[in-house]
Amino acid sequence: MQLKVKILRFIAGRPISILDEETAVKLNVHIGERISIFKDHHKIISVIDISKSGFLNPGEIALSNEIISTLNISEGDIVDIGLAEKPESVILIKKKIDGGKLMDSEIRNIITDIVTNAITEAEIAYFVSAVYQHGMDSRETESLIRAMVSTGKQLHFNGNVVDKHSIGGIAANRTTPIVVSICAAAGLIMPKTSSRAITSAAGTADVIESIAKVEFDIEEIKNIVKKTNACMVWGGSLGLSPADDKLIQVERILNLDPKAQLLASVLSKKISVGSRHVLIDIPFGSSAKVSRSEGLILKKDFEKFAKKFGLNLRCVLTEGDEPIGRGIGPLLEIRDVINVLKRDENAPKDLEGKAIFLAGQIFELCGKSEKGEGEKLAGAILDSGKAFEKFRQIIETQQGRVPSAKEIESRLGIYRKDIISEKAFKISSIDNKKMNLIGSIAGSPMDKGAGIFLYHHVGDNVEKDAKLVTLYAASPARLKSAFDLFKKSAPII
Amino acid sequence: MQLKVKILRFIAGRPISILDEETAVKLNVHIGERISIFKDHHKIISVIDISKSGFLNPGEIALSNEIISTLNISEGDIVDIGLAEKPESVILIKKKIDGGKLMDSEIRNIITDIVTNAITEAEIAYFVSAVYQHGMDSRETESLIRAMVSTGKQLHFNGNVVDKHSIGGIAANRTTPIVVSICAAAGLIMPKTSSRAITSAAGTADVIESIAKVEFDIEEIKNIVKKTNACMVWGGSLGLSPADDKLIQVERILNLDPKAQLLASVLSKKISVGSRHVLIDIPFGSSAKVSRSEGLILKKDFEKFAKKFGLNLRCVLTEGDEPIGRGIGPLLEIRDVINVLKRDENAPKDLEGKAIFLAGQIFELCGKSEKGEGEKLAGAILDSGKAFEKFRQIIETQQGRVPSAKEIESRLGIYRKDIISEKAFKISSIDNKKMNLIGSIAGSPMDKGAGIFLYHHVGDNVEKDAKLVTLYAASPARLKSAFDLFKKSAPII
Repeated sequence: MQLKVKILRFIAGRPISILDEETAVKLNVHIGERISIFKDHHKIISVIDISKSGFLNPGEIALSNEIISTLNISEGDIVDIGLAEKPESVILIKKKIDGGKLMDSEIRNIITDIVTNAITEAEIAYFVSAVYQHGMDSRETESLIRAMVSTGKQLHFNGNVVDKHSIGGIAANRTTPIVVSICAAAGLIMPKTSSRAITSAAGTADVIESIAKVEFDIEEIKNIVKKTNACMVWGGSLGLSPADDKLIQVERILNLDPKAQLLASVLSKKISVGSRHVLIDIPFGSSAKVSRSEGLILKKDFEKFAKKFGLNLRCVLTEGDEPIGRGIGPLLEIRDVINVLKRDENAPKDLEGKAIFLAGQIFELCGKSEKGEGEKLAGAILDSGKAFEKFRQIIETQQGRVPSAKEIESRLGIYRKDIISEKAFKISSIDNKKMNLIGSIAGSPMDKGAGIFLYHHVGDNVEKDAKLVTLYAASPARLKSAFDLFKKSAPII
Repeated sequence: MQLKVKILRFIAGRPISILDEETAVKLNVHIGERISIFKDHHKIISVIDISKSGFLNPGEIALSNEIISTLNISEGDIVDIGLAEKPESVILIKKKIDGGKLMDSEIRNIITDIVTNAITEAEIAYFVSAVYQHGMDSRETESLIRAMVSTGKQLHFNGNVVDKHSIGGIAANRTTPIVVSICAAAGLIMPKTSSRAITSAAGTADVIESIAKVEFDIEEIKNIVKKTNACMVWGGSLGLSPADDKLIQVERILNLDPKAQLLASVLSKKISVGSRHVLIDIPFGSSAKVSRSEGLILKKDFEKFAKKFGLNLRCVLTEGDEPIGRGIGPLLEIRDVINVLKRDENAPKDLEGKAIFLAGQIFELCGKSEKGEGEKLAGAILDSGKAFEKFRQIIETQQGRVPSAKEIESRLGIYRKDIISEKAFKISSIDNKKMNLIGSIAGSPMDKGAGIFLYHHVGDNVEKDAKLVTLYAASPARLKSAFDLFKKSAPII
């Protein structure tokens, strides 16, 4: 069928054609399907989008810039279109759904098509679902990690390059900025890339972004690390294991987290950023991502695959039965971090203890400290003020500024509500998942000042009429939604 | 976070918000995810789309008409947006992925969200995948059929209402227009809705569309049936079992066809259209959709569920080892149909025989004929010319006209190529799947005159230099692609 081209000049990141609804019905094509577009003797495969807005007339087609330039098309040109064969990776995804094993080259084919946008979200969903249902064996997992690394960029740093990762799920728990500052102050190289919130109320990138820039290109990151030994940036725009970013988007639709993809996600990022010594924090508990026994299995898997790629990796299982620190939400969390770094009396002891523990583990892992001596060194660096100085240097190099307590206070959500205990009781649990959800509903991480401040931890005796938490939000509607959810879900028992 | 509304006036069929890419990155939201939009004290959940075309500035948001009218928004208004909770059906899909059983109300919830566009294609892909992996038990399948019927419209006709359906997969095989004409000429009511091509080169709706209109609304269809006893229309725009149409879109991405959904698809359409007596044609064979043993199991399932919904249903297993008829492609197929109806000497005998068999089965099923007498009656009606008269009446009532042989010839693709046998041989097989694919590549069903004309069937002795097929296409590029694929895939052995 012949259609007339209307030039709209849009860059879709892949070849996209827009048809009006009437034409799409006639051609029996649907959003996300593919057509071949023929012009003269050239052909390109394009994914379809359908417009109902009336800017196209029947018989017209709008083509993304990728197609316009490849086929050398002008406004009003006539193109011939037809149904297209599916890319091979779609057939491979079908094979995996049917329980087949994928070869190294087949996994690379799928991952390449994910990175180049050659396959759609629904097709990626079928892939994620297949891996979730059938798992991946060791050989497939290894291929997945290799494909995810090789389809992205890679960094290399000289020196003792260390890294940490938490599998997440715990509310607050903002140890990373403290650990990075201690390690970098000790002379280790720590080019830390972090995610934004995935399942929690805020990710490390969201938290740092409340006081500094977190989006840089590869060259800028090299300069930041050269100057300060470290960085604390968002990993999403760097092109390190870009397949991982896409897979996570589709996984989070159903909160699926197939183990092979969790392993590949973490390890591909660490390999790509050039880390040599990697500490993995696996918090376990009833409202954490994994139970203790699942955590132990995961630890073995991480260690097995790290060895195949020459990473010196250690996993630590940590208690994850309640939030760590007092603030949940970007500015509330950065306040906790700063209080620990500047040795303020209001610093949350649990956060401080965990950060010292993790930094100590890294010191021992990379040979900076003898076995059993790491925490002592980490604590000394923290007490000396060198970690705080290093933190300030990194933040300023990332075009930010460490705010005063007063400044933070003034930037917190102006709509606030204290939640008061209706009776005297001893706290037996604080649910991470519920706390994260309440924090999100309050506006975190989009509103940097939104979130929850916790007055108590598990084991505390709370009196009647005492404050349990304060909710912060940027609008009354948000505050009300968060308050209603707190009352309904009862996260503190 | 607060954003400024830009009014674009687009009707998306569901609440859609468009953000520019920079804003989307800041909010850490992706295409297909949901946000809550707050204005005053009202809130609406919207799916996100992201524009890279620069028509939105950072900090702006475009909202579909569904949102504009619900929240009563004007150009330049400020709305507050945040992450939204997932709809309950997404949680139910997760339950099914994990192997859980779905309750009647839960299936209804998912199907309702599919029909109202409340869930995305990737989410539907997860649902299809879950049903494909875990199947559905009898209770779930029954609930699925009921939900698909009740979320759509339903038709009711007086009289002896009959229907037929082929599970498809065979190239050409255009029995439907002949069977409908014979049955309607015999006084039966046959409101036949058909699909466009799904896996074959053309669907019945595509074929009829080459000489008449096939898109009507419910009232128009009632009038056509009242006047002619029958219709031959496209089922897609009628709102009969609309969930089926959406599910098929997502299934065909990977050509998944989970049995529960196949059963529900066919039966929900037949129940919705008001059929009482239904004949199901199950072609089996090596290049058909099912083997003989799979066909027998499917037959039992169809009969079991039909009984639950009070349908008088019969399944016939037919040989599906090669295309039936000579033409593959809309006009080539309608030529075969017309030749059979007007008792032309060029009429393909296999197509004629199968149509008489199916019509005879329907006569016996609905009590029009005694057992064993159906084919005789069907053949007599065909020979009498009454079926051709009825066909002409239906086509004309559907605003079409029955063309002469000469007219059809003049409308066939002008780019043609004969494929010549390179040696003398006896044909042992003609692959349906390959033939369908070659027909599609040639331009069918979009180009009505494109397709394949077959000179021989299985068992024929072909001499050296004899014609095997003629390919028809609307452009030289199409003709070449189809020719290359024919040579590469060798569909005739």
